[in-house]
Amino acid sequence: MYLAVMGYGTVGSGVVEVLNMNKTQIAQRSTVGKLEVKQILDLRDFPGDPNESKFTKDFKDILSDEDIKIVVETMGGLHPAFEFVSDCLKAGKHVVTSNKELVAKKGYELIELAKSNNVNFLFEAAVGGGIPVIRPIEQCLAANDITEIAGILNGTTNFILTMMIEKNMTFDDALKLAQEKGYAEKDPTADIEGFDACRKICILATLAFGKHIYPESVSTQGITKISLKDIAYVNAYDSVIKLLGVAKKISDKKTFVAVYPAVIKNGSQLSSVSDVFNAVLIRGNAVGDVVFYGQGAGKLPTASAVVADVIDCARNDEKRKPIFWEDAGEDDLVISELSETAVYIRAKLKAEKDSAVAEIEEKIGRIELLTYDGAEKDEIAFITERKSEKELKDAINSIGEIETISVIRVTDY
Amino acid sequence: MYLAVMGYGTVGSGVVEVLNMNKTQIAQRSTVGKLEVKQILDLRDFPGDPNESKFTKDFKDILSDEDIKIVVETMGGLHPAFEFVSDCLKAGKHVVTSNKELVAKKGYELIELAKSNNVNFLFEAAVGGGIPVIRPIEQCLAANDITEIAGILNGTTNFILTMMIEKNMTFDDALKLAQEKGYAEKDPTADIEGFDACRKICILATLAFGKHIYPESVSTQGITKISLKDIAYVNAYDSVIKLLGVAKKISDKKTFVAVYPAVIKNGSQLSSVSDVFNAVLIRGNAVGDVVFYGQGAGKLPTASAVVADVIDCARNDEKRKPIFWEDAGEDDLVISELSETAVYIRAKLKAEKDSAVAEIEEKIGRIELLTYDGAEKDEIAFITERKSEKELKDAINSIGEIETISVIRVTDY
Repeated sequence: MYLAVMGYGTVGSGVVEVLNMNKTQIAQRSTVGKLEVKQILDLRDFPGDPNESKFTKDFKDILSDEDIKIVVETMGGLHPAFEFVSDCLKAGKHVVTSNKELVAKKGYELIELAKSNNVNFLFEAAVGGGIPVIRPIEQCLAANDITEIAGILNGTTNFILTMMIEKNMTFDDALKLAQEKGYAEKDPTADIEGFDACRKICILATLAFGKHIYPESVSTQGITKISLKDIAYVNAYDSVIKLLGVAKKISDKKTFVAVYPAVIKNGSQLSSVSDVFNAVLIRGNAVGDVVFYGQGAGKLPTASAVVADVIDCARNDEKRKPIFWEDAGEDDLVISELSETAVYIRAKLKAEKDSAVAEIEEKIGRIELLTYDGAEKDEIAFITERKSEKELKDAINSIGEIETISVIRVTDY
Repeated sequence: MYLAVMGYGTVGSGVVEVLNMNKTQIAQRSTVGKLEVKQILDLRDFPGDPNESKFTKDFKDILSDEDIKIVVETMGGLHPAFEFVSDCLKAGKHVVTSNKELVAKKGYELIELAKSNNVNFLFEAAVGGGIPVIRPIEQCLAANDITEIAGILNGTTNFILTMMIEKNMTFDDALKLAQEKGYAEKDPTADIEGFDACRKICILATLAFGKHIYPESVSTQGITKISLKDIAYVNAYDSVIKLLGVAKKISDKKTFVAVYPAVIKNGSQLSSVSDVFNAVLIRGNAVGDVVFYGQGAGKLPTASAVVADVIDCARNDEKRKPIFWEDAGEDDLVISELSETAVYIRAKLKAEKDSAVAEIEEKIGRIELLTYDGAEKDEIAFITERKSEKELKDAINSIGEIETISVIRVTDY
């Protein structure tokens, strides 16, 4: 069976490499024999590349090639990826993509288009890179009502936080190191502000709960405000700070979805996910908690997920794989406040410490004070009890003797 | 679509419960509408059970019922499970099982039988309970050459080791507690001697490498010889002891498969798997390391995996899902010695410590001595460098000034 690859960057070239590297077993597992790349779309030239003869700069060459049954989209960005993918689906070609922006923003439209053309539109690589996550949700956990998902979904920010936690590097130095290592782009905004994680949790929440969650509706907070002081205080609580994407089903019409840094106790499965690794925790009403862990990015891991989807398209050439993804209704609500949570707070003291603690405990209940060697004398840090988040916020705002600097949710994962 | 359940024990009754609890979404995901239990086979009586009217004591009632398209086998044991499953497959019914003994010993035969009758024989629940493992190997990681698998595959032994590590309980006390909590059976042999983990690693190795690995050919060591002294010494190495099932591909014809306690560094994904939880690490040549974590046993988690397979059978009623599982050839070899490993050794001193250390280092190279508060004066414990396991064993045996008590492999996961 023939395929085309659109976009010969890191992931696209990785797809060609994996198809070649493991061709014998891929041919066996596809059940249709060899899977061969016939055309590669890229506007750049790749002189000397072993696949040089397969390159084209004209999308129409691929669209009109009836031999090509499966098209891999690894260009990234919304345009022209959306138009090209739409055209391929309309032409009766299966499409596999690693493009999270495309899926998060246009997933519903493209799935409907695939359905009406009786082809598959698969996107395992768009979430969690090489880690199998989407298929487990769709198939392995099909017998469960999924109530909650929490994931470390962005390798760049996890690397930066790991360097801050383990090497005591400042955020700026850790970001610089991530850029030197090629983990962060020159403009790191999408990673460090949480936008990348947001797209991924939107896709996961949509698959788990069945209705399209759009990134615009999701409260998204990055890691730029995390300081080494927060890391040190939280360490005294035997915990670490990780950037999480979280989705909880509140009711049929109401979902909590948000991206935020969170305090996680050491010893949990998510706390030990370090460097550029990712992990996704899924809570089902029958299976309990399951966690999937692996490399969330990188050439070959991501390509491995793309090729698994390609194999699945080949196996299911005649049959559509069902995906449960409806558009959001007008009365579907995405909320960003938890009905119950504990929080970590760091604040400037505006009065004597004992007096401030008395006021805090009077207004928000018992707290656990944190400290570390070298903590500033005029600061205070503590963990609250679990309470309604709205009540907690109101109470914190009413405390006159401190000025809040950081507020970070404490998870129970 | 109608199904039957054979064996109304913990898992079987859980299957009926999950089918009922999540029936709306299961009907949606099956793509064939409602999945309904029509008959339940069990020799016992269940007066007052809500499904009382569905019970039969005669297997032929199920076999001859043409409405029943899918049969769930949750009886356990080899006989009559093997005969019943064979008859169902021959009668053109899909079979889903959670019976690891059946799959580990008769997997090849039953898969071939399913193939020749154009039905599915699925067994996700036979490894790792609720954790999706088999389907990820077969599908999500299909683009990878899998080189290695290592798993904490038995919840009972993991619970016992966790109690020893965290509560300083002796093996006997921890086993007793496991029995009180219902995690261990009255006769705990299959768990504590590693036989249960052995069946599971055999199934995983077979799926990953494609040829049937039989339990009889696998070196299997349990945890009965692990003492609190070993736990304490290994803690001084910032590590824990876990019972692992390990499979490595050495060459096309040669596989290392074994079950043994191993030393694992804290901070790794496997080290933080505690209590009755299980985890499986899979190493692929494209994806790197991925880890799947969750509840390896228990009524609803296991039932959740069985029902996922049932849904898959319904979805693929007309089409067989491919499984790559050949019988082992006469020249296929399962080995039980590693080409390279470090080991932890605890030994009785038969000479002065300094003199013994000198002899050890002369014979096996540099070692890292371990100690803890309260260590016996006439004992020594250390970690060796990584070496050929055969050479290490020979060298250890040649040391005259110590008498070896424990030898435990150190992993690099």
